[in-house]
Amino acid sequence: MAAVGYPHHTEVSVDGLMMDEPLLLSALLWRTERLYHDKEIITRTGPGEYHRYTYADYAKRVRRLASALLDFGVKPGDRVGTIAWNHYRHFETYFGVPGIGATLHTINMRLFPEQQQYLINHAKDSVLIIDEDQIPLVEDLVARGIPTVRAFVVMGDGPLPETTLSPVHRYEDLLARGDENFELPEFDEKTASAMCYTSATTGDPKGVVYTHRAMVLQAMCLAMHDKLNMSEDQVWLEVAPMFHCNGWNIPHTALLQGATLVLPGIHPLDGDYVRMVSDLGVTGMNAAVTIGTMMRDYVLASDRDWDLSSLKTMWLGGQAPSRAVMKWWSQRYGTYVVQGYGMTECTPQICFNSVKSTLADRDEEEIYDIRQKQGQPIPLMKIKILDESGGELPWDGQSVGDFWVRSPFTASEYYEDERTKESMVGGWFRTGDVGAIDPNGYVILKDRSKDLIKSGGEWISSIDLENALMAHPKVREATVVSIPHEKWLERPLACVVPSDESVTGDELREHLAGQFAKWWIPDEFLMVAEIPKTSVGKFNKKELRALYEGAGLPGITERIGLTSAKPVA
Amino acid sequence: MAAVGYPHHTEVSVDGLMMDEPLLLSALLWRTERLYHDKEIITRTGPGEYHRYTYADYAKRVRRLASALLDFGVKPGDRVGTIAWNHYRHFETYFGVPGIGATLHTINMRLFPEQQQYLINHAKDSVLIIDEDQIPLVEDLVARGIPTVRAFVVMGDGPLPETTLSPVHRYEDLLARGDENFELPEFDEKTASAMCYTSATTGDPKGVVYTHRAMVLQAMCLAMHDKLNMSEDQVWLEVAPMFHCNGWNIPHTALLQGATLVLPGIHPLDGDYVRMVSDLGVTGMNAAVTIGTMMRDYVLASDRDWDLSSLKTMWLGGQAPSRAVMKWWSQRYGTYVVQGYGMTECTPQICFNSVKSTLADRDEEEIYDIRQKQGQPIPLMKIKILDESGGELPWDGQSVGDFWVRSPFTASEYYEDERTKESMVGGWFRTGDVGAIDPNGYVILKDRSKDLIKSGGEWISSIDLENALMAHPKVREATVVSIPHEKWLERPLACVVPSDESVTGDELREHLAGQFAKWWIPDEFLMVAEIPKTSVGKFNKKELRALYEGAGLPGITERIGLTSAKPVA
Repeated sequence: MAAVGYPHHTEVSVDGLMMDEPLLLSALLWRTERLYHDKEIITRTGPGEYHRYTYADYAKRVRRLASALLDFGVKPGDRVGTIAWNHYRHFETYFGVPGIGATLHTINMRLFPEQQQYLINHAKDSVLIIDEDQIPLVEDLVARGIPTVRAFVVMGDGPLPETTLSPVHRYEDLLARGDENFELPEFDEKTASAMCYTSATTGDPKGVVYTHRAMVLQAMCLAMHDKLNMSEDQVWLEVAPMFHCNGWNIPHTALLQGATLVLPGIHPLDGDYVRMVSDLGVTGMNAAVTIGTMMRDYVLASDRDWDLSSLKTMWLGGQAPSRAVMKWWSQRYGTYVVQGYGMTECTPQICFNSVKSTLADRDEEEIYDIRQKQGQPIPLMKIKILDESGGELPWDGQSVGDFWVRSPFTASEYYEDERTKESMVGGWFRTGDVGAIDPNGYVILKDRSKDLIKSGGEWISSIDLENALMAHPKVREATVVSIPHEKWLERPLACVVPSDESVTGDELREHLAGQFAKWWIPDEFLMVAEIPKTSVGKFNKKELRALYEGAGLPGITERIGLTSAKPVA
Repeated sequence: MAAVGYPHHTEVSVDGLMMDEPLLLSALLWRTERLYHDKEIITRTGPGEYHRYTYADYAKRVRRLASALLDFGVKPGDRVGTIAWNHYRHFETYFGVPGIGATLHTINMRLFPEQQQYLINHAKDSVLIIDEDQIPLVEDLVARGIPTVRAFVVMGDGPLPETTLSPVHRYEDLLARGDENFELPEFDEKTASAMCYTSATTGDPKGVVYTHRAMVLQAMCLAMHDKLNMSEDQVWLEVAPMFHCNGWNIPHTALLQGATLVLPGIHPLDGDYVRMVSDLGVTGMNAAVTIGTMMRDYVLASDRDWDLSSLKTMWLGGQAPSRAVMKWWSQRYGTYVVQGYGMTECTPQICFNSVKSTLADRDEEEIYDIRQKQGQPIPLMKIKILDESGGELPWDGQSVGDFWVRSPFTASEYYEDERTKESMVGGWFRTGDVGAIDPNGYVILKDRSKDLIKSGGEWISSIDLENALMAHPKVREATVVSIPHEKWLERPLACVVPSDESVTGDELREHLAGQFAKWWIPDEFLMVAEIPKTSVGKFNKKELRALYEGAGLPGITERIGLTSAKPVA
């Protein structure tokens, strides 16, 4: 009998009033299977080719997987790793693995092998479920040493390819042995459901363990009005990798709402996303910001006059989409580009941008100003900004400080990691981001605290500079990083991918001069063919800083040719 | 350290992964106060007169109330009763009382004094917060005996009226002593937040105690797409009494979403609802089915050409709105009349009707057929129908059985009541309703099990007959009850409120004949001026049955004049 003693230590019973029904992923599946059994999950299998089945089929296969894993010796609490693309089999593991109380560990396939080896050993994965094309990579991991893994399961359509992995099973054989009527068990809602690792600024990636409760509550928040436009009649394309924060928890939200879910399958290219929208009448999608730009560029370069007007919502995340990209989609197809702000540690959404009705009468550019903000905290999410001495700053849109959050879907620890104590303090999570909050609760991120530029004792926001640069018609992408400087300690350096190669540094300098104080303007503008990205598609400022570290100014331009930030040919 | 032992008794820790942030009503207030501080709560104070303040004002007064109640000696777990209309002060108690871990007991002001006395004594209310106009009633209750109540608080604008209540305080004086910066405490989410009593078919009303967790989860469900259309830009009129299942949990949902909330104040009349929609640009409202009919009739009888086209959503509950009312609102104002299905025991929603996209291509009448169903279960709600031997029936839209539910917002007990064991069985709640479930999970209620008519061993659905009767152009309201019959044991009796007094029983008999088996057709049609309603606006079949019990057929018509079912003059 639990009791609450606040505040005069009166004991008040809190049991037995309402049913003790846990918030489990299986509760979402129970409903969707019954209400939306005929709605589809569609996976791209080739150009214009799709695998289609219904949520009824999906649920049967989830139960087959769950029962087969139990027979296979997977126990509650065990970690089951996946290295896979976005497709229906991977999505089956999303509910099949947590469905028996085991933990789904989605491994980022873009990491270096030594990082993947670290994750698997740190998480103590007992089984790995992988795509066929990942076999060589996993053979390499075995050679490096992943001793906790006692079985490999390969997802694919055909027979098992030749491999040294052992013991190894076909995923489809496993399912064939499973029971499609297996009833998913009930257990505590705070049971681990999934885990992901997030890159750290220094050292190994850090692990976050999600619970059923956290994932159910996030899906409910995202399904709410004024948050993500996920409704039953959506045809939703999940472009964000399913190994990245559980695909932003979007596949769960689509399932909760009975929306049609579209998955891009193995090795999708830019044009595949465009084609899927056109072929399937996709109404909404979520992706990294770069995808929105790439799709635009694909359409512009294409001979075909693509009709993408079914696409009502494009949620671009990872960083703020530029105003130019927002406007292009709106003008060309009537697509509303929206942003949220999330982190692996927050299951993952923290904020979602919707324009409050009291602001709706502003003029177009002011509305875009609002839409450029990272949005308002979603329900149940509390936020605050603190100054350097730990004092809480006002929500005036001006005061910039460390951004902290707490919620039922925020991690209270990094999995078996000493770095927990740096980030989880006093019941709050220190995001590492720096920003302001405006009087309507819109968060305006200024930078990762590591990405901030402090020049002559004053802060420079690299994000503000990047947005301004990307608004220039001759710029496709731009990032600004801090580099060491003898006099000012740090100075901003701009790396620019031109869309028109005639662009000059002077032209960009002049473009910025009207908008920022003189000392904010980068001293150098490097024209490059490509900006290195992290495994989740963000500008890799850590890599850029490492490349240029110690170079000082000027003269840095000469070194570019040697790096992965390729200069324009 | 909690642990989960399923299924091989492996102990898996479930603590410390995600933050232990409770689902508290105060978490909703925290956010709304910051994001929607300038949005309004509007209360009707007279014809065309309104009291307006913002959520920022509201939150300050909630904190004043909470701190004042603590100072006043109210402890966590204490019951604080209210007898009040829908207005801003009553809404302040919604968050102020549960905000300190006390329980808000909203007392139905339409009950008989002996029932109210029973409720107050059974709930052991320690304080009563009442409207000024309820003073004579409460003085009467004191005379009858409500010994647990140790203080009375009177809500109103002016000075305290003359009263024998003692000790008695002005609500505004209480608030003046409170602290507007008081921080609402955190405690277990399964702490009681509110309680309501529901009429029983026999015996005293039964109490249901809600938890913070249940109410937060319900509000989140209602705020989801395809459920209630509650979004930030709504201007929502809460017509359903705030003493009835926490106003259907709608005020909490409006607050969660930052919607403008409109409250009808003291003693609203039919025309007041119409005027509020027109004056304030109301976009959505929830009310008992009869209100939708009364508003229509008011508009039709009015000299003024009312523009109610702002009203996009009219949620009519308590029973199914007739197709005629649905169509009238749609044709006249473009208002979408929607229904849900709830019970006091379920916080309260069980189902909500939205037309699945796969059904949207049906013709208009088929769409109305779907909209006449009680809807699909909301997220986290599990449902089943059982036959008389307890076997689960298929979801074929035909099989009719007892309707059972379970969810995290369904009561696991009636408060200190032996009748718990009749209704809460094996982790499920037996609703007492009888119905079918169609293959898309739409619930089709046939009757309260007590209201079912079993004639010659075969079931007759009074609801189907009522809907058919109400679709007749000369019928305003109709109800069908079971009365004893020598040969068939039970027979249906129709009570009809005509909209056109020329209507005859033969005309109605003929109208039904095309739609139902001959033995379904009521033997008698009683034309009455009014059908007695329960305190929550439903047809009071219990009262009707009691009136006619033993009367047999025919000849019953002669007795009508003696009853509250008034005959047409």
